[in-house]
Amino acid sequence: MRYYEDMFVGQKRRFGSRLVARDEVIAFASHYDPQPFHLSDEAAAKTHFGRLSASGWHTGAMVMRMLVDEQDAAGHQGLGSPGIDELRWVRPVYPGDTLSVETEVLDKRRSQSRPEMGLFTSATRVFNQHGEVVMTMTAKAMIRTRDPDGAD
Amino acid sequence: MRYYEDMFVGQKRRFGSRLVARDEVIAFASHYDPQPFHLSDEAAAKTHFGRLSASGWHTGAMVMRMLVDEQDAAGHQGLGSPGIDELRWVRPVYPGDTLSVETEVLDKRRSQSRPEMGLFTSATRVFNQHGEVVMTMTAKAMIRTRDPDGAD
Repeated sequence: MRYYEDMFVGQKRRFGSRLVARDEVIAFASHYDPQPFHLSDEAAAKTHFGRLSASGWHTGAMVMRMLVDEQDAAGHQGLGSPGIDELRWVRPVYPGDTLSVETEVLDKRRSQSRPEMGLFTSATRVFNQHGEVVMTMTAKAMIRTRDPDGAD
Repeated sequence: MRYYEDMFVGQKRRFGSRLVARDEVIAFASHYDPQPFHLSDEAAAKTHFGRLSASGWHTGAMVMRMLVDEQDAAGHQGLGSPGIDELRWVRPVYPGDTLSVETEVLDKRRSQSRPEMGLFTSATRVFNQHGEVVMTMTAKAMIRTRDPDGAD
């Protein structure tokens, strides 16, 4: 099981392999982000995207799934997230791409008001199969403490 | 049609009415964010969420749909987004909530490298049916210029 006490600044993890399926790109965009360049190659060709590209929210959601799968495998005692400090969609994500993730812990602290909880900040970089960065994100997250009376 | 030239700093819009459906909360979380508090009331009751709450990525996606619907109605010539400067999930979003959105333009500038494009930054606040803020976001977006040779 992975608790607050098991996180340390500088800790890096590399994981995930998510194929971006064309049907899923169009289904997600149809529900949540029906801008033309997320729905068809023809519309995307008239923009800097060039061809059908995943919604940035879809990319974020696919990244989240890779994060959760890694955390489940580790018994990570996550308690959600208060937010994102910065997110950049650096390059388009295309159907057929395979995404992977690298995370690094930037800082950690115990919650003052909730001793059962700690907070940490992570830098996340998302790569496509060419090793190109397609998304970066700095985000906060909460995690259970093993020892609510601990000092670290 | 709404082009870069039609955006101005201080411009505010209030729109959207999105019911958060329980089935959709669970379906989204099952695909993209299968943390226990996004899947069942029982698991959420053991955390500060209290009961089943929407994934923050799902909330962001629902907000994006309200943004796109408003933009479609206005003929907004959007060209995607380079990223988010800050996002905060302020309060849990529960099944049965109805979300709405307020946006304000914070700044705008023409692209140096792509005269057919301008960039602007918006502050977005998301409310539930009680008028409580559930999410805030400061994000950048691209939009077509009406006149690529314009000076404003």
